[in-house]
Amino acid sequence: MQEGTHAYRLAEIVQRFGGELLGDPDVVITQVATLETAGPGQISFFSNSRYRRQLEHTRAEAVILTQDAADATQRSRIVCQDPYAYFARLSALLNPPATVVPAIHPSAVIDPAAHVSPKASIGPCVAIGPRCEVGDGTLIEAGCVLGAGVRVGRDCRLYANVTIYHDCIIGERVILHSGAVIGADGFGLAWENGRWNKIPQIGRVVLGDDVEVGANTTIDRGALDDTVIEEGVKLDNQIQIGHNCHIGAHTAIAGCVGIAGSTRIGRYCRIGGSAMIGGHLEIVDGVEISGATTIPKSILKPGTYTSLYPVSAHREWLKNASHLRHLDEVIKRVRDLERSIAELQGNKQ
Amino acid sequence: MQEGTHAYRLAEIVQRFGGELLGDPDVVITQVATLETAGPGQISFFSNSRYRRQLEHTRAEAVILTQDAADATQRSRIVCQDPYAYFARLSALLNPPATVVPAIHPSAVIDPAAHVSPKASIGPCVAIGPRCEVGDGTLIEAGCVLGAGVRVGRDCRLYANVTIYHDCIIGERVILHSGAVIGADGFGLAWENGRWNKIPQIGRVVLGDDVEVGANTTIDRGALDDTVIEEGVKLDNQIQIGHNCHIGAHTAIAGCVGIAGSTRIGRYCRIGGSAMIGGHLEIVDGVEISGATTIPKSILKPGTYTSLYPVSAHREWLKNASHLRHLDEVIKRVRDLERSIAELQGNKQ
Amino acid sequence: MQEGTHAYRLAEIVQRFGGELLGDPDVVITQVATLETAGPGQISFFSNSRYRRQLEHTRAEAVILTQDAADATQRSRIVCQDPYAYFARLSALLNPPATVVPAIHPSAVIDPAAHVSPKASIGPCVAIGPRCEVGDGTLIEAGCVLGAGVRVGRDCRLYANVTIYHDCIIGERVILHSGAVIGADGFGLAWENGRWNKIPQIGRVVLGDDVEVGANTTIDRGALDDTVIEEGVKLDNQIQIGHNCHIGAHTAIAGCVGIAGSTRIGRYCRIGGSAMIGGHLEIVDGVEISGATTIPKSILKPGTYTSLYPVSAHREWLKNASHLRHLDEVIKRVRDLERSIAELQGNKQ
Repeated sequence: MQEGTHAYRLAEIVQRFGGELLGDPDVVITQVATLETAGPGQISFFSNSRYRRQLEHTRAEAVILTQDAADATQRSRIVCQDPYAYFARLSALLNPPATVVPAIHPSAVIDPAAHVSPKASIGPCVAIGPRCEVGDGTLIEAGCVLGAGVRVGRDCRLYANVTIYHDCIIGERVILHSGAVIGADGFGLAWENGRWNKIPQIGRVVLGDDVEVGANTTIDRGALDDTVIEEGVKLDNQIQIGHNCHIGAHTAIAGCVGIAGSTRIGRYCRIGGSAMIGGHLEIVDGVEISGATTIPKSILKPGTYTSLYPVSAHREWLKNASHLRHLDEVIKRVRDLERSIAELQGNKQ
Repeated sequence: MQEGTHAYRLAEIVQRFGGELLGDPDVVITQVATLETAGPGQISFFSNSRYRRQLEHTRAEAVILTQDAADATQRSRIVCQDPYAYFARLSALLNPPATVVPAIHPSAVIDPAAHVSPKASIGPCVAIGPRCEVGDGTLIEAGCVLGAGVRVGRDCRLYANVTIYHDCIIGERVILHSGAVIGADGFGLAWENGRWNKIPQIGRVVLGDDVEVGANTTIDRGALDDTVIEEGVKLDNQIQIGHNCHIGAHTAIAGCVGIAGSTRIGRYCRIGGSAMIGGHLEIVDGVEISGATTIPKSILKPGTYTSLYPVSAHREWLKNASHLRHLDEVIKRVRDLERSIAELQGNKQ
Repeated sequence: MQEGTHAYRLAEIVQRFGGELLGDPDVVITQVATLETAGPGQISFFSNSRYRRQLEHTRAEAVILTQDAADATQRSRIVCQDPYAYFARLSALLNPPATVVPAIHPSAVIDPAAHVSPKASIGPCVAIGPRCEVGDGTLIEAGCVLGAGVRVGRDCRLYANVTIYHDCIIGERVILHSGAVIGADGFGLAWENGRWNKIPQIGRVVLGDDVEVGANTTIDRGALDDTVIEEGVKLDNQIQIGHNCHIGAHTAIAGCVGIAGSTRIGRYCRIGGSAMIGGHLEIVDGVEISGATTIPKSILKPGTYTSLYPVSAHREWLKNASHLRHLDEVIKRVRDLERSIAELQGNKQ
């Protein structure tokens, strides 16, 4: 864990973020930690009853918790309604992103026709193409490549080895993790005379403000119109988003999800890891999709959706799964049975 | 959308690509667009009845469509048999790949024992190892790395940050998107004395002509023989192809597909997104595999194959899926019922 | 296939690795090959009965096989108990990793406050941040980026374009393939007032000795504590490992697997390709998970686990799968039938 380099008294923390303080207001907090590992100067949080025992034994300097749990420890406590959200804000205060020191590394290759803010920081071996714009306070780490005409807003962070294809637009405060590829060609092909003809992908990718894109995630440029990721969308690692998709604001998508082309996903959706969403679909606002679930058609009503095959010991699975190929026949047999029973019952009356 | 920089009269287009022109032959077309967004100078196409309403209201300068639909708009029209294929060729005409200007960026590191065509273009911070060959008209963008002995044919395009391991062979007109890794070691391990021993992967990857490889797709080198991707194969993003696979010509594979080692896939196959194909299998020519389908054994007959668990609202799923672990028992109960019915019926006769 | 540059007599091989030699001890072996393609100077192995015919017709100089199969060919043979493991060791002898020639490429950017062993080799356009340490005999290929404070042990190999975020720890003899991203932020978010707040990820990634990480695999840093991959773990390509996971020693994970955050996987597990493992789970030692299987809850008993939906021709699938949404109702109908039968039988007695 990183050593904390910032320090706040509990009284300052409560003054800033609210909550009721039980304990010594002058205790100094320098870092967040788990209940199990926290020690001097460290604050933890309790929001999941399965960690009750850790709460009782924690050596954290202080704990953020709800009223219900306030008596379970005698350490200093901050009582609030949502300890996890409180902890998130406090951790952000204690662990701010490193200050961006404006500089352009001499090994960076910046086209003379690009405009890089003098307040931006450009790392080693970065390549920035013609007509690019990079905003104030933006950090572009080593090995990133921006094609021609890319616009990156202010206060963004591109970790090492990110690639952005030509003409894509990145909003403000966007975070792109290493290996992310923004704006590669969509999978647009037309079959003719026994071979595939490539369809030029002339749209762009447009990422809204406060978007975060995980490591090795790929977002394809539009075929004709743009691929759009609205503000506040959070994408985990190794996600694939096909051309012309539109992801609504504040939707969160976990790792390894694939979304085929031209699908429109609403705002405030939550999509579990390894889910797969077909192309040309509409998913409305507020839909939750379970991990490993496949969505082959549109979802027009909010709610939680699942398509998980239950796991079992391999031997059990062998016995049970083989019937799935004959389920239709089984259902017919049940129908026949019902008919026979009805006849027998009829005969008896 | 990119501005069009090429311009053709409708008469010229029909002369070049065929089809029947209804409307003004002197209208000038500079770009393709969707029915919904097209405006002056832009041509669209209609090939999916679900966009009928957009066709009726389109402000496109002209529309490519079939005879059936020719009366649905009064805009200029090109009537042909396959509007999508026609549109693909026309879009390629209007949006040709940027001309490759031969040049080697001074920051590129090219081994003295490599042979790079004077007609190739090598971007910033590219590393090209000993004994590499790069053909005429090939563009290698910033940050690409070619290990020793890699051969890249003519008119290829390697987007930024592509990696090719030593000794791999890339055909002509091949497109490799950013983050693609060609020729990493296959997953070859032998278990001995409580630990895994690595098996050297001494084969190569051989990509045929006109292959396209999507962003962050990985193709492992062969363990002993080569991994082979035949001509015209199109691979979307984030695909994993294991060592010693052989993919037949003109097969298209959508995003996030995994293919385990030593599997042989035929020509003209189409594999849907997130499908998973086991190792040491044979899939014959002309097989179509649905998205999210798992293939654990060989497919020896052309056709379409599927293994999708149907999605439902989570509550419904909970009720239904739990039975899958007891399906065998249910089938036995049905069999018992059939026996009992037969007995009862026998008794009655 | 690579040409062999090392040469050993069969007598030397048997002396080194054991086994019984049948044939000419002076035959010289320079390379390994498959039964089908092996020729002069090449040795092959036989460990899978499905290749019996190839064994009978092989033109390999020699074959490694078990006693059972020793009579199936008259080529020179090495008889041993585990031909595949024997072959692995022999191939490693014949194909040792290239010698690391200590050197720092002039285009590499190494922070003055980093310590790179004079016995390490650093390729073109590599960026190494402050406080990094790189051990003896370690090779870091072109385009790799190490953030501040990264420690890489001795005799490691980082292929081109690997990214390691700040403060991560890499053991000895670790292999990282191209595009791997070690230590990106975990997917840590807290929902508050209609938007996601990012939770700083202040843990690290710690990779033990002899770990291998495949191309484009991502391992996220811990949120508070570290993400830990123990010694001898082998990870294939395109795997995603979430923050705070702990993978036990000598576990092997095939391509495209996703493991959500805070899951603990035991030692000596084997996880098939495209499996998906939920978050906050425990998987004990010695568990085998089939390819494409989803694990939504902890596994506390060793054994093999599966959740595969069986594939069938699409038409068959359509007929059968539709019933899964009504399975609960079908089971109720079976129960009703049983009740009716019991009544009828009761009436008859």
